[in-house]
This record gives sequence, structure tokens and C-alpha cells, in this order.
Amino acid sequence: MKQTIAKITIALAAALLMFGATANAAADPLSSWNDGASKKAILEFVAAVTDKNGKDYVKPSDRIATFDNDGTLWVEHPMYSQLYFLFDRVKELAPKHPEWKTTQPFKALLAGDMKTVMASGEKGIVEMVMATHTGMSADQFTRIATQWIETAKHPRFKRLYTELVYQPQLELMSYLRDNGFEVFIVSGGGIEFMRPWTERVYGISPAQVVGSSIVTEFQIKDGKPVLMRTPKINFIDDKKGKPVGIYQHIGQRPILAFGNSDGDIQMLEYTTAGDGRRLGLLVHHTDAAREYAYDRKTHVGTLDKGLDMATANDWIIVDMKRDWNQIFPAESK
Amino acid sequence: MKQTIAKITIALAAALLMFGATANAAADPLSSWNDGASKKAILEFVAAVTDKNGKDYVKPSDRIATFDNDGTLWVEHPMYSQLYFLFDRVKELAPKHPEWKTTQPFKALLAGDMKTVMASGEKGIVEMVMATHTGMSADQFTRIATQWIETAKHPRFKRLYTELVYQPQLELMSYLRDNGFEVFIVSGGGIEFMRPWTERVYGISPAQVVGSSIVTEFQIKDGKPVLMRTPKINFIDDKKGKPVGIYQHIGQRPILAFGNSDGDIQMLEYTTAGDGRRLGLLVHHTDAAREYAYDRKTHVGTLDKGLDMATANDWIIVDMKRDWNQIFPAESK
Repeated sequence: MKQTIAKITIALAAALLMFGATANAAADPLSSWNDGASKKAILEFVAAVTDKNGKDYVKPSDRIATFDNDGTLWVEHPMYSQLYFLFDRVKELAPKHPEWKTTQPFKALLAGDMKTVMASGEKGIVEMVMATHTGMSADQFTRIATQWIETAKHPRFKRLYTELVYQPQLELMSYLRDNGFEVFIVSGGGIEFMRPWTERVYGISPAQVVGSSIVTEFQIKDGKPVLMRTPKINFIDDKKGKPVGIYQHIGQRPILAFGNSDGDIQMLEYTTAGDGRRLGLLVHHTDAAREYAYDRKTHVGTLDKGLDMATANDWIIVDMKRDWNQIFPAESK
Repeated sequence: MKQTIAKITIALAAALLMFGATANAAADPLSSWNDGASKKAILEFVAAVTDKNGKDYVKPSDRIATFDNDGTLWVEHPMYSQLYFLFDRVKELAPKHPEWKTTQPFKALLAGDMKTVMASGEKGIVEMVMATHTGMSADQFTRIATQWIETAKHPRFKRLYTELVYQPQLELMSYLRDNGFEVFIVSGGGIEFMRPWTERVYGISPAQVVGSSIVTEFQIKDGKPVLMRTPKINFIDDKKGKPVGIYQHIGQRPILAFGNSDGDIQMLEYTTAGDGRRLGLLVHHTDAAREYAYDRKTHVGTLDKGLDMATANDWIIVDMKRDWNQIFPAESK
């Protein structure tokens, strides 16, 4: 008897929820997207893979979507947010490191000579990452990253970096989740730099973040188990690393991948080469007035080969200026 | 108006669902667990962390539970299932490898000399893993593992390995999920050996599996992007590796961890050392009649130091013979 009541109740509840969903369907879930080819491609794709009677149907557990972060979900110009974090860390730690006054690229950074800093290239950046992102416990690093992200502001927009996420992408990720997708971040950025805030900002849990990482070690310190961050690179989640990171972490090939730079090409190739219907998309930054305009000739988020490959691969180029009627969420009061 | 209807509908549905849940509450979600200290500890823990007004409340997004696999969720004696898979692979591939007739431990295995095979130790096993688990694409390996797991049978029980999962643990994982937990596997076994079947058998998706892995590489082969499995170890998810695997993959400290061997000690230490209420559990294999009895002196799933540490750390020793009234799911007809 109790089981019967429960079954009837659940059936009723499900029916009511469906009715609710129908009544609500008139609202546009992608209202920050202008009508046009990009929005149409997204809506048609989602309709196709969720249509149980259609030839392109994909069961919910296989509806995996992966999004790059920098330049795809939030602003990456004039420089990646994590680099600002890195530079702030170097300045904060400088009093404890007198040797930095005479060691490049630390010396240049502390003197405000950004040209020399940037000229130190990947090698210089990695040195600074190791000096500032390691040597503490995982919990300590989370606290440091959290404190920074809650206070640091973007030089042009004077807003928190987490307020400079793209409203159309927030809508798209919600729309995908409402249609049974699981949404992951697959970013070249540091995994532990992102995890403290992705749930709050994007609705993406720590386990749904794939990123670059350093080696951590389990140790017993003062009788307490801790994970210590060591100055060794564990994994670089960029270019050819992205499909590898997806395989290691998610274990399923996405059916939708969204990027914005040549670093995302392999993720899109891997995604769209799978059987059945697939969707690959790239944000094209074309809006210097509201955000930034860059593609082939920038040093941050270069989109060159990706633009050339898009047509042959049926990837959608999302033109920021044309396709998005709003860039950022409204300013909070 | 439409929004109002939707809101009322959702409220109604939620109320009905709650009523349904109440009507159903009389059924025991852990019916294969005998009443006793172990079951009591689990029920009290879940009640405490889900009580919104209690001091031990944990919000759903922090309710992370991790389970070891071999010996915790399915049978690991007389030998890990993946070793049976490995040996079957060597025999299947032998015709293509005439050199194995004169190379140990392949030679011994092909001659049925298991004593020499086991004496080759970890080095011998790793050699055979590299020779049989790599050199193909990720998709090919998934097909091979899937085919094996769907047909191979356990030498004593003559049932598929996936039928030799512990019914009490299936109930526990469902019970945890019903209480807002996310459940992960954290196993020393190969991640890609487990992923093809964990969703079907345990309700655990590929992304919720943490395990040992080899290095994969992204390549373009005949114009198609593929992930190739290479003969290099990427990560060993055992002992000190388990908390590291959890950090890399899940990014949150579990509040409940369940293991069965000394390989799980660090996972339990890491879990139960966190702030707030935590639960660590170990299966103690005490039932030679229905399953196996082993602890300090076995070579597969040794539980020695863990038994000694349990009391001081308040870890629950789940005694298979005493605590579980059913071991495996009923035989399917």
C-alpha cells in the first residue's frame, strides 16, 4: 500500500513537473544570444540529441559537454587572470625572497618592467609559478586563491574577474544541464586555481574541472595527513593535452566542445570526430568596444589555424559582436 | 502568468515527492546489513550530515564518498579480476608473440606455471600489463575490456565478475546517493578497465572513477584523431597515491571513505582527518563459507596495519560474516 501511494505520487509529481516545464517553455533560455546561425546550430543540436525518436538521439549519460575557460567562459585579455594572480603572489612574497631583487624574471616584475617579464616566456612563467604556487598544502593554496579571486579586479573593467564571465555562456551551460548534459571545464589554466569558485560562478563542481596541475604528495606533518604541492609539473592541459585530460578525467568523448583559441583545436577534433551528431564551437573575439577584438596576431588566446579549420570541420564560429547581445552579467548592486 | 503556473506546479510536485518519500520510508534501504554497530554507525552518520539543523550538517555539494573497488565493492580473491583479464589477454595474444615462449613471465604463464608467474612480482605484472594493455587506441581497449567482462567467469563461483559485487555495498551506495552524496570509486585497479561497466553495475559514471593509468597520447592516424595507449605508467592510485588521486580528480576531501586493505589507509587518514564529522570504514573478510576469510597474511588485499589503526582512528571494521546477511545479488534467471 505504502509503495503504491509512493508510486502514484511520483507519477503525479513527474506529470506536474512536465506540465510546469511546458508552461515555462516560452521563455528563451538563450536570451543573450541573438537569433542567427550560431544560436540556431545550438538549438538544433540540442533538439536532435534529446529527441528520443530521432536518429541522433544520445542518452543522457553520454551527453558530455566540455568548455575551455580563458576566453571561452571569461575574459582573457589583456592577460590571463591567473597571470595577474601570479604577479600579485610574487609581489606579496617578495619580502621573504631578497634573492628575487637580483634574479630574473622576478627582478623585472618587481621593478614593473613587464616587457622583460613577458620576454622571459614560458620558462620564466613556470619559474614564477613554481616559486609561488607550490611549497604549501593543498588547503593553504585553496585559501590563497580564494582570497585573491574574491578581491582582485580587472584593470580595464574594474570588476571582479568572476564578474567578467560571459552571460551567453552561463545561459548555454544552464540550458545544456536542463537538457541532461553534464558540463565540464577543460582548461589550460591551473586546476586548483579554478576549483575554488567554478561551482559558485558556473555551476561546475570541482570534480568537473579538468586543468593543468603540479605534482602533489601525501605526507604526515605533525601527525596530520596533508597534501603538499611540489615544484614539479604533473600535467599540461593544453593543445594535445586536452583530449588526454578528457580521457583521463572524464573517460568519455564529449559530444559538444566549445573553445576560442588554437589551444582548443585538438579538443574540437577529438569531439567532432566521434560517431553520431557532434557540435564544435569557437568564440571569435570581435568586439573591441564591449570586450576585445583579437584572433590571428595576439599572444594571448591566438585563434589562427582554428579559423582556417572551422569550415572544413563544420565548427561554428561564434562572433561575439554579432551573436551576443550581452557580454557580462548585469552589475550587482 | 506562465511563470506563476510553473512555480506553483514545481512547489506542488516537490510537496508530493516529499510525501512520496515519507510514505516509502518504512522500507529498509540497507536490508542486507544486519542490525549492529556497523549499520548503526552508517545510519547515524548519514542522519547527522543531512540534518539541516544539526551541528554536523554538510551541504550536498560537499557530500563526497569514496569507495575502493577490489575487495570493497567486488570479490578480489583468489586474485584480482584484472589479473585474470591480464592472463587471458596474454594467452589470446600469444600466437602473435612467438618470443613469449622463451621470455618470463610470459613463458611460465603460457605453461600454466602460476607459481613462477606470481614470483615475478610487480615487475613481471607491469611487463605483462604493458604488453597487453597498451599499443591500441583507447576505444579499442574499451571494446576489449568490455568483451572480457561480459563473458569471463570467476573460478569458484562460476558467475560473471560483475555479479560478484557486494549487495550490501550496492544498497549503501544507493542510500548515500538518495541522501545527496556523490559516490566515487578510488581504486588501485586500471581506470579504463573499470569504466566500461561501473555505470551499469554500480551506478558510477566514468568520470566518477579514479584509478591507476598509463600514459595516453593524442595522435592523428589516417586523418582521424585517436588516443593511443602507450607503455608508460601515468599514475598508481594506491596507498599514498589515493589521496593524491582524489585531489587531482575530485578536488574535494571526502567525508566518507570505505576500503578493505592497507592500500586504503591513506585514503581513510586523509578523509577522517578533515574538519567536521567523518566516517572511515574497512571491510574485514571473515566469511570463508560465503566468500573468503583473510586479513594479515594474504598476498591479495592484505589488511594488517589497518586493523591496528582502526580503533585509535574510530574507523568502523565491517565484519562480513557478522554484518552482512547477503553477500552477492540474487542470481539472475
